Amino acid sequence: MAPSKKTYKGCRDFYPQDMRVRDFLFDRMRIIAEQFAYEAFDGPLLEEVALYKAKSGEELINEQIYSFTDRGGREVAIRPEMTPTLARMVANIHKQAAKPLRWYAIPNLMRYEKPQRGRVREHWQFNVDIFGAPTNLGEVEILELIVSFLTSFGATNEMFSILLNDRRVVDSVFTTLLSLDEDSSYKLYKVIDKAKKVSLEKLDQMINEILVKSEQQQIFKDYLNIANFEQLNSFLAKYKIEENCQEFVNFVSLIKDQPYTPFIQYDPTIVRGLDYYTGVVFEIFDKHPDNNRAIAGGGAYANLLQIFNETPLAGIGFGLGDVTLRDFLETHKLLPDLSKPEHDLIIYYTDDNNQNKSFELARKLRQEQLKIECNLGTIKFNKIIKSAENKGYTFVAIVEERDGKAQVQIKNLKDRDNKFFNLNETQEIIDFIK
Amino acid sequence: MAPSKKTYKGCRDFYPQDMRVRDFLFDRMRIIAEQFAYEAFDGPLLEEVALYKAKSGEELINEQIYSFTDRGGREVAIRPEMTPTLARMVANIHKQAAKPLRWYAIPNLMRYEKPQRGRVREHWQFNVDIFGAPTNLGEVEILELIVSFLTSFGATNEMFSILLNDRRVVDSVFTTLLSLDEDSSYKLYKVIDKAKKVSLEKLDQMINEILVKSEQQQIFKDYLNIANFEQLNSFLAKYKIEENCQEFVNFVSLIKDQPYTPFIQYDPTIVRGLDYYTGVVFEIFDKHPDNNRAIAGGGAYANLLQIFNETPLAGIGFGLGDVTLRDFLETHKLLPDLSKPEHDLIIYYTDDNNQNKSFELARKLRQEQLKIECNLGTIKFNKIIKSAENKGYTFVAIVEERDGKAQVQIKNLKDRDNKFFNLNETQEIIDFIK
Repeated sequence: MAPSKKTYKGCRDFYPQDMRVRDFLFDRMRIIAEQFAYEAFDGPLLEEVALYKAKSGEELINEQIYSFTDRGGREVAIRPEMTPTLARMVANIHKQAAKPLRWYAIPNLMRYEKPQRGRVREHWQFNVDIFGAPTNLGEVEILELIVSFLTSFGATNEMFSILLNDRRVVDSVFTTLLSLDEDSSYKLYKVIDKAKKVSLEKLDQMINEILVKSEQQQIFKDYLNIANFEQLNSFLAKYKIEENCQEFVNFVSLIKDQPYTPFIQYDPTIVRGLDYYTGVVFEIFDKHPDNNRAIAGGGAYANLLQIFNETPLAGIGFGLGDVTLRDFLETHKLLPDLSKPEHDLIIYYTDDNNQNKSFELARKLRQEQLKIECNLGTIKFNKIIKSAENKGYTFVAIVEERDGKAQVQIKNLKDRDNKFFNLNETQEIIDFIK
Repeated sequence: MAPSKKTYKGCRDFYPQDMRVRDFLFDRMRIIAEQFAYEAFDGPLLEEVALYKAKSGEELINEQIYSFTDRGGREVAIRPEMTPTLARMVANIHKQAAKPLRWYAIPNLMRYEKPQRGRVREHWQFNVDIFGAPTNLGEVEILELIVSFLTSFGATNEMFSILLNDRRVVDSVFTTLLSLDEDSSYKLYKVIDKAKKVSLEKLDQMINEILVKSEQQQIFKDYLNIANFEQLNSFLAKYKIEENCQEFVNFVSLIKDQPYTPFIQYDPTIVRGLDYYTGVVFEIFDKHPDNNRAIAGGGAYANLLQIFNETPLAGIGFGLGDVTLRDFLETHKLLPDLSKPEHDLIIYYTDDNNQNKSFELARKLRQEQLKIECNLGTIKFNKIIKSAENKGYTFVAIVEERDGKAQVQIKNLKDRDNKFFNLNETQEIIDFIK
């Protein structure tokens, strides 16, 4: 039986027109990360499962990971996220490395997911992290970087928000104000995660199952009602937990009156799961009603290296998926037209005698960094224009015999301009088509 | 117990200094492929095992593939090579697509290998293929492309050869001259693959086990002694198999007197295994005694789509691994110094009051596409030069108060040139450091 021609479930075939979009996005990731002096890194596709068990949420390990036993008996997994690999790599070198470390990566990751809009099994993720920066300044830089990235496509603060919170605020509410034990804290985290997705009645019901005392319920509702940084300050003052949250309060004053300030909004429902994060947490949220969802998330971690028994090294980072990014840009019509490849010129010849001369012309123009397609084999003269137009070219070269010697005719298909050159007039040809 | 800090066996961690090399190589692959108007594509990390069973050699499936059963009961594998994915994707679109298709990819692939020099478990492979070109012209283009790629690093024909053969020659020898059955053919292919790695006595012994008649032995030794294209022509004439090999003979005359001709050499031992290939086959061979091995290989296939019961579509392509490429370039000292990142400028401030001004200067310069590191936090003035030198910078900016207003001093650490600017003189600063 013939094997299937289908793509493996939840994965994507990138035909050239899709690959152009992917490369466009990845190039922009690299450009922005490097403008901020972040350095590219990558790790292996496989890691031992123990690495994920030590650091990731249970759901990820039990339900979402692609794991198997290798021929050497090792329990391994295809990386479902990059942070554990990053932690492992940093743990190997942080003692001798100059700080801060500024690293980025664009790895492919795999998770068992039910394929749906914005969610696939194999995706790429733009990961950016800074380790060992002075208090709050890594956070400032990371926020500016992600805003620079999205606005470089033309996105405005009408299109996305950065919803910001701090785990120290949440932990103070849970521990100091609500006196919750670990189990109840875990459950309430789950409720917060769902706060925006359920009805108010349902939310009330879920809260009341965990928080039995009415004072507790009141405090938690007060918390969920905080709508901006001013109200947060009032809340912290009212409940006398300012001291626990002083660093976050300082951070908020640092990011006042910056170019990225209009993008930032306090949101008490942002908690980013249970793992890693210990400080600032955030999500980039698409404001468009057709795509109202998170397109990236991140936060600060005081001690990612703990699992390796290394000395603490604070960091902050984010991950942004290629699928959610593309959905965001398409929803807001921020993607350029990439339906045709951007080659410079196509060369045709109508007579086999000009084949080698055509190849030679192609060679010379490629040496000048031009993208040149050489039409292989002869073609009838009257079919040239149509062929070139179908392929999306603006410029066509036709190598032909003229007055007893080989010449090249260059046609501009847009304005129908037309000129003859000798085959060695490379620079003149380049001037004509540029 | 803490998880291991080690990289998974046979895989690599790419710390920034290694990633710079990888990006340098990948960028060059993209540049050259696009100069030849090849378009990037990619497929999924996982494919169903059935796809490889239909097309790949037994050794690959039984011993080298990373396969497992997914949660949906599918037998899947991490791609060990790209050609089956390419075939599957082309099979989906070839009927309506304009020919030729020129595609390239740089996928990560995984194989169980015993790690050794030039061989790892996860590697990246530059794959370039053309489908549906007129007879022999795709072959010509692919050879020129790979020579352009390697010579773009400065490689010469003293450093590498393209060892060329044709499966139609081998098949004519095996079938028409030696009258071998399938089983003996298979065994003799294996002998040819080992011809250069064993002693002459051992080779004789292996040959004589398969070829029992002395006439057969003589023909095969004659074949193995062919040292160039002229001798090949004599051999084909002597044994009257010119007709079977006519296309290859035409091809050889096409690639005479081309700029890449000095790189090409006929080699009867190049057969490239049993699968895929039906025409021209080749290997790029490093001539350096310290790294005397193949760094890439490829060939022509008349009918890669056969397994999908599709109409035939001829193609030719090659694969070149990142590890063997790096070994080749390092052996011949063709890699540039990439030990330090190439950022343009680092900005320091010695007083918290200048923090926001420093961030603003960084922002303006980044908008001009410069790569700017902003030193986070204040630093003592006398520590600045040492800090910047350690990081490998040539230019340093120091934002400071001068005559009652904030200015920026730019220092060139190489020639110790030094100049003051106002913070809004972005263009003047760029002119100074460019």
